[in-house]
Amino acid sequence: MPEFRQNMLTHEWVVIATERAKRPEDFVKSAVEKPPLPEFSPKCPFCPGNEGQTPPPLETLERDGRWQVRVVPNKFAALQPDVPFKAEPHGRFLKATGYGIAEVIIETPRHDMTLAAMDRQAVEDVVGVYKLRYLSAACKDKICFITLFRNHGLRAGTSLEHPHSQLIATPIVPPHVRNPIEQAVRYFDSHGQCIYCEMLAEEVRMGERIIAETEFFVAYAPYASRTPFEIRIMPKIHQASFGDIGGREASDFAASMKMILAKVSKGLADPDYNFIIRSATVGDEKDKYFHWYMVIIPKLTTPAGFEIGTGIYINVTYPELCAEFLRSVAV
Amino acid sequence: MPEFRQNMLTHEWVVIATERAKRPEDFVKSAVEKPPLPEFSPKCPFCPGNEGQTPPPLETLERDGRWQVRVVPNKFAALQPDVPFKAEPHGRFLKATGYGIAEVIIETPRHDMTLAAMDRQAVEDVVGVYKLRYLSAACKDKICFITLFRNHGLRAGTSLEHPHSQLIATPIVPPHVRNPIEQAVRYFDSHGQCIYCEMLAEEVRMGERIIAETEFFVAYAPYASRTPFEIRIMPKIHQASFGDIGGREASDFAASMKMILAKVSKGLADPDYNFIIRSATVGDEKDKYFHWYMVIIPKLTTPAGFEIGTGIYINVTYPELCAEFLRSVAV
Repeated sequence: MPEFRQNMLTHEWVVIATERAKRPEDFVKSAVEKPPLPEFSPKCPFCPGNEGQTPPPLETLERDGRWQVRVVPNKFAALQPDVPFKAEPHGRFLKATGYGIAEVIIETPRHDMTLAAMDRQAVEDVVGVYKLRYLSAACKDKICFITLFRNHGLRAGTSLEHPHSQLIATPIVPPHVRNPIEQAVRYFDSHGQCIYCEMLAEEVRMGERIIAETEFFVAYAPYASRTPFEIRIMPKIHQASFGDIGGREASDFAASMKMILAKVSKGLADPDYNFIIRSATVGDEKDKYFHWYMVIIPKLTTPAGFEIGTGIYINVTYPELCAEFLRSVAV
Repeated sequence: MPEFRQNMLTHEWVVIATERAKRPEDFVKSAVEKPPLPEFSPKCPFCPGNEGQTPPPLETLERDGRWQVRVVPNKFAALQPDVPFKAEPHGRFLKATGYGIAEVIIETPRHDMTLAAMDRQAVEDVVGVYKLRYLSAACKDKICFITLFRNHGLRAGTSLEHPHSQLIATPIVPPHVRNPIEQAVRYFDSHGQCIYCEMLAEEVRMGERIIAETEFFVAYAPYASRTPFEIRIMPKIHQASFGDIGGREASDFAASMKMILAKVSKGLADPDYNFIIRSATVGDEKDKYFHWYMVIIPKLTTPAGFEIGTGIYINVTYPELCAEFLRSVAV
C-alpha cells in the first residue's frame, strides 16, 4: 500500500508509492553508460594551460608548485558583485538590482577526476576552499545567504564536464529558506531543542535509514525522502553554519562526503546529481535552532505536474531500501 | 545587468540573468525534432480496441457512437481510493495511509493528436470532463485538495505518448499549497482585495507580458516568471475554484488553452511541458481571496543546485520577450 510521510520540519508530505515501487537495483539497470573523459581537454576553460579563459582567480590552493583547487568568478554570473543593491517598485511589483556573488570552485586540474575518486587530501582541500569562500562571502556587504552547490551531469543542469562546484551569495533571504527557519524557531520555542538535532537523533535511534556514520557526521536517507536516494550528511553536534566547521570536523566531513559519493557512483553507475550545503543565514551562525547539512540528490526520476503543483513528491522507492543498498556498496 | 524580481504573492524571488540571456528563438534552435507518432499504436493501452488493458472507465464522453474522452483509474496509482485515511505517529515522525484519488483522462482516441491540434469542440469536451471529475472528486470523503495536470513528453515526466491528463486528489493540504493561500488571506485582510485579481489587473495595465485575451481569460507571462515561457491563464472575474466554472466560461477557457498550447507548440517546436490547474481547497470555493488559474511550464531549462537549495530560479529570458514572441506566433 502507498503511504504518506511527513517531513517533521517543513510539514511537507511525500508519497511512497509501492504500486510503482522500484528496487534500488532497477535504477542501475536503466542507467546510460557514459563514455570516459580525457585527463585533459584542450578546449576546457578549467583545464591547466587554459587559465586565461577564466577571469583572474579569487583563490588558489597550490601543492607541489601547481594549483590543485582554483576559484574564479562565474564568467556567466547570474549575479554581479559590483552593483549596489537596491530594491524598488516596478508598478505594483518589486524588483532589485542583481547584486550578489557567483563563484566557480574548480576542484582539481584533472578533467576526468571526481570527488568520489580523488584521494582524501584532495577532497579535504576542496572542503577547505569551500569554507574559505563561504567566510569570504559572509564578510561582504549586504550578503544574507550563501549557497554552496554542485551540479554533476546534464540532468543536474550542467554541461561543463570539468569537476567544479559553485557558490552563490545573495542580499536577500527567500521564503523557501526563511520558512523552514521559522518552523525551526517555533519548534525550539515549544521544545527547547533544535529540531534538526531531534530528527537526527530519531533517525539514529530507528537506524534503518542510516547509510554511514563517521566521528562527527551521520549520512542517512531521510524518513520523508522526496526522491530515490536522497541523502543528507549532517553534523552530530549542533552547528548552525558550515562556516563554523572546525579543522578536524572539516577533515571528517570530507571523508564522509567522499565515501557517500563513492557509494552513489559505484552503486548507481555514476548518476547525475546535485548537492547543496545549506547553512544558517549570515549573522545567525550562533543560532540554537538551525543546523547546517549537505543534501545529495541523484537525478534518477523527473518531477512532474503533480510535484510542481502540490509540492508532494511521489517517491517510487523506500528510503530504508536505498540506505540498505548503499550500506552494502563497498568503497 | 541581471535583476531580481519578486512574486507579489509568495514573495519568492527570481533572477533574470542577462549575462546568459537567450533570445526566445534560441530555444527553437536547440529543440530536438521528434519523430511523428502513428494515429494508432497497437501496444498503447489508451488506444481504441485496447480498452481491456485499463481498469473499467469512471467516465466516458461519447460522440457518434464512439468514445471521445475516457477517464480511468490510474493503474499505477500513487494513491488508493479504497483505504480509510488514517494519520499516525511513526516514532517521532508522522505517516498516513495512502488514501486518495488518481485518475487518467484520456483526451482523444487518436494516439497522435494534441490539445493544440484538436478541433475546438474536442478541447471543450476535455475541459468539460476535467470539470466533471473535479466535482466528482470534491464529493468524496475527506478529499481536501484536487490537482488537474498534464505531463507532455519525457522531460515533463511521462513516457506514455497517448494524449492524457491526470487528476490527483488528496486528503491533506500541503504547506506548498497552504502557504500561498495564507499569504492571500493576509493580503485580503490588509487590502480588502483578492491579490490574484490585483496582480492580473497590474499585468493588464502594464501590458507588455500579455500573450492573449479572450472574453473571460487572460494569458500572460508572469512578471516574476521562474522559467522561460512560463505562462498563466487566469479568469478575469474573481473565481476561487475551477469547479465553479460556468458553461460559457468553460468554452472560452478551452479556446484560450488550445490557442496558447498551439502557439507554444508551433513557436517552440513542440517542447515538452507540464500544465497544472490550481484551485482553492475543497469547501473553500466561495473564498474571496483565492483565484484559480492554469500554469503552463515548457521544459526548456533544468533547475539545478541553486534553484533546489534556495527556491530562487535563475531565468535566462525576459518574460516580456517571451510574451512578445508568443503574441507574434500566428495560429
